[in-house]
Amino acid sequence: MSVEDILKTHPRPPIADLAALVRCIDECGECEATCTVCADASSAEDDVRTMVRSISLCLDCADACDATRRILSRQTDPDLTVKRTAVEACLVLCRACAEECERHAQHHEHCRLCAEECRRCERACQDLVSALAPA
Amino acid sequence: MSVEDILKTHPRPPIADLAALVRCIDECGECEATCTVCADASSAEDDVRTMVRSISLCLDCADACDATRRILSRQTDPDLTVKRTAVEACLVLCRACAEECERHAQHHEHCRLCAEECRRCERACQDLVSALAPA
Amino acid sequence: MSVEDILKTHPRPPIADLAALVRCIDECGECEATCTVCADASSAEDDVRTMVRSISLCLDCADACDATRRILSRQTDPDLTVKRTAVEACLVLCRACAEECERHAQHHEHCRLCAEECRRCERACQDLVSALAPA
Amino acid sequence: MSVEDILKTHPRPPIADLAALVRCIDECGECEATCTVCADASSAEDDVRTMVRSISLCLDCADACDATRRILSRQTDPDLTVKRTAVEACLVLCRACAEECERHAQHHEHCRLCAEECRRCERACQDLVSALAPA
Repeated sequence: MSVEDILKTHPRPPIADLAALVRCIDECGECEATCTVCADASSAEDDVRTMVRSISLCLDCADACDATRRILSRQTDPDLTVKRTAVEACLVLCRACAEECERHAQHHEHCRLCAEECRRCERACQDLVSALAPA
Repeated sequence: MSVEDILKTHPRPPIADLAALVRCIDECGECEATCTVCADASSAEDDVRTMVRSISLCLDCADACDATRRILSRQTDPDLTVKRTAVEACLVLCRACAEECERHAQHHEHCRLCAEECRRCERACQDLVSALAPA
Repeated sequence: MSVEDILKTHPRPPIADLAALVRCIDECGECEATCTVCADASSAEDDVRTMVRSISLCLDCADACDATRRILSRQTDPDLTVKRTAVEACLVLCRACAEECERHAQHHEHCRLCAEECRRCERACQDLVSALAPA
Repeated sequence: MSVEDILKTHPRPPIADLAALVRCIDECGECEATCTVCADASSAEDDVRTMVRSISLCLDCADACDATRRILSRQTDPDLTVKRTAVEACLVLCRACAEECERHAQHHEHCRLCAEECRRCERACQDLVSALAPA
């Protein structure tokens, strides 16, 4: 089962190219989970005092990804400005979280994985913004 | 008890003028709740088929308000671009939801109340964006 | 504006005694915000390494309060087992968070305030569970 | 990238058997997305007036899955009663949503897919409850 399968059964057309939409919804879901785990893992590290900014940004990013994923899941009578605004904001939060986690990637493997996922989600958001662009 | 009380006990300074910050956090909480009730009330109306866009926008707005409220509640080592981006996006979603609910305000009292709350939240976001502006 | 005002305009009757329902929705909102701030404040404390369990429980509690608040905001064609289950779970999470934050109430004022709010939300959940009880 | 990969890099042991934990986190994510799409799809159907209970239960289920997924993602200093309570509540909401969507599975393909996903998530919750059981 996948988000793509159920979106194909929706009575309305997708708000954007289906592949770009599905990828963004999926990456937002992965990124929310990854950031939630990374923040929790950082809080358990011996050097937690140097991880505080990473924790804060991971939690912010998880919240943005969660909201964006839900907003993108709705296809009915869409306001495309609303959808695009949400994705553009999510992109900014993913990038900020990636930059911070990259600084810790050498000494914490969960930060390396989290930064990679944030970059993937950032790209998926960027591609969807392009797909949602007004003609 | 209020968000203001606990923010005053935080070891770090608030990310912006405390009154503007508290008002935005509070309005995001009110707006999330109001939009959640309004979407549910609209689904129970006899004319639900004309309320579908309102339901969709109320649910989108509730999600954005929820994420923004959490992001604004964190003061530790903030990335102000992240905070401002979240508030600016929330503002756009509140405005879109207000505009749609205003169209139904004459025949559904919950839409009138929801539109009012979305406008209040939009103003609180606007004021906080100003308070977060770079010098 | 309040949740009570908009619930009174809902075309369906409330799922339980209105006063008990409104209080629980409001306390869940307060508790979500308070726990989010408390977790963030704890991460910024010098003794963060002793606050890790409190951070984890505050984040868990915030998530439960958020979900419960939304679930209680919906009055349309309710499944009362669903509603009661959500409130009973929320109550358990509020109690666990209160117990942990009470252990830090002497040295961190945000933990004292958070524990108080968790206890208030726990009581509001308990009262609503009673109001939702099958005859 | 998967939740399993990043959980393996966490400095603390998982709160339960890793395979059962990962499956439950993953199914909660899938179920949240599926229920969000199904509620939105139902609101766009011609027979929306008969879908109102399904919409309400899908939204409740999505909220419970979202909170449970986050709560299960945290391994640090866990309160196992909290974790088990969240999963047990989620299981009840998935079952209720599955039962309602199954009633519409013949005429709406999204309800058939949603009911299937809710049943999968219910089973993953049940298996994790067993894995979390006190000795």
